[in-house]
Amino acid sequence: MMRESDLKLFAIDGIGEVRAGDDLATLLGDAIVAHGVGALESGDVLVVTSKIVAKAEGRVVRIDPADVMAKAILVESESTRVLRRRGDLLITETTHGFVCANAGVDLSNVEEGWAVLLPLDPDRSARRLRADLRRRLGVEIAVIISDTFGRAWRNGVTDVAIGCSGIAGIVDLRGTPDANGRILEATEVCVVDELASAADLIMGKASNVPAVVIRGAQPEWLREGSVASEVIRTPDEDLFR
Amino acid sequence: MMRESDLKLFAIDGIGEVRAGDDLATLLGDAIVAHGVGALESGDVLVVTSKIVAKAEGRVVRIDPADVMAKAILVESESTRVLRRRGDLLITETTHGFVCANAGVDLSNVEEGWAVLLPLDPDRSARRLRADLRRRLGVEIAVIISDTFGRAWRNGVTDVAIGCSGIAGIVDLRGTPDANGRILEATEVCVVDELASAADLIMGKASNVPAVVIRGAQPEWLREGSVASEVIRTPDEDLFR
Repeated sequence: MMRESDLKLFAIDGIGEVRAGDDLATLLGDAIVAHGVGALESGDVLVVTSKIVAKAEGRVVRIDPADVMAKAILVESESTRVLRRRGDLLITETTHGFVCANAGVDLSNVEEGWAVLLPLDPDRSARRLRADLRRRLGVEIAVIISDTFGRAWRNGVTDVAIGCSGIAGIVDLRGTPDANGRILEATEVCVVDELASAADLIMGKASNVPAVVIRGAQPEWLREGSVASEVIRTPDEDLFR
Repeated sequence: MMRESDLKLFAIDGIGEVRAGDDLATLLGDAIVAHGVGALESGDVLVVTSKIVAKAEGRVVRIDPADVMAKAILVESESTRVLRRRGDLLITETTHGFVCANAGVDLSNVEEGWAVLLPLDPDRSARRLRADLRRRLGVEIAVIISDTFGRAWRNGVTDVAIGCSGIAGIVDLRGTPDANGRILEATEVCVVDELASAADLIMGKASNVPAVVIRGAQPEWLREGSVASEVIRTPDEDLFR
């Protein structure tokens, strides 16, 4: 039995290869129904990898993986500026405003000779998927589109949210009394990034789990939100750009 | 019933105020036993907030919260260099090598007139707690010490690992074939940060939950690890310092 404070995560698998033009809500809806009763309930958070969203939206391009120059040109075409360059690694600011390696252009987990880009507008992708799943399954859920980014100062990658719908990007705990009754200092928690990281723990990188259900989200997180307007720090507010 | 791929998180509460000299393994052990049968099993990951570890270790100092200069001096004494300064916010590199705001010095969730510092050696704190809980409860678990850090480029804070024991800081998926049988590009996942973020989702900032059990860790994560030697990026490897 779950207690109110518990959190439970489980994988939605069996989705198979996603191709341009596929209807994600149909693919995910079928996989969720196949998963069994109670696989997706109102109040759940569904985390979906950027990769299957991008593939369904046709955000794939042909590329020769051995052609370093072609890859650099592709990365720069997805970017508004290059922040750092080391060898063939580019850290850029994408057209969305994300700072990440190679503008999110991904040659792994895709057929040889193809690259997957980031969705054009991941918040919109999340809103659409959420509306489609509501229509199809009658559930009121939150959707997070996740991708794998590096960070400054710390080794290793973690998953973060690049789009969301039905959930706050940032939960503001400013003004909430702490356990001693004192008002907390600024504590704006990026719950969508924490949820994306949690989901990645069971996605595995090579095991074909492109969607994870998280049950136990706090009801106050569940308002309409946006990664673009809440989570992306604008360059003028950023001390490290 | 849990499937192999599922992940479950639950809070260990009822620990109360922690004071210098308290034995954390006794406090946590009692709270875990009170939680009921199966509250902590071998293979679980126990995430504990830096704050109760630091308090138990006596890493608290008297400070007048209105004295901005005293706070700045304290922050600088915990740091090896200041990276950025804006108003009374300092981004520094701590003596451990963490880059974070105000060197992790925390005036919230602590009695008025006191500041909590980061543990001196969080990996060692994790090793000690793990060994003590093994002795006390007979379980072979992993321990993560977590704290709340900001990031470059993205708004909001998330929880990260500042120390660990019994679990890899970074899981290296390089050389693992992806779902198409191709060898993945470098994918070194910082699982301890993802686990710390997941745990924060049920800690809440003001609800007195200083410990979370995560069940469902992949067995290959469970080797001895270290945040200091695996996760901290050294300045010469860092493109943003």
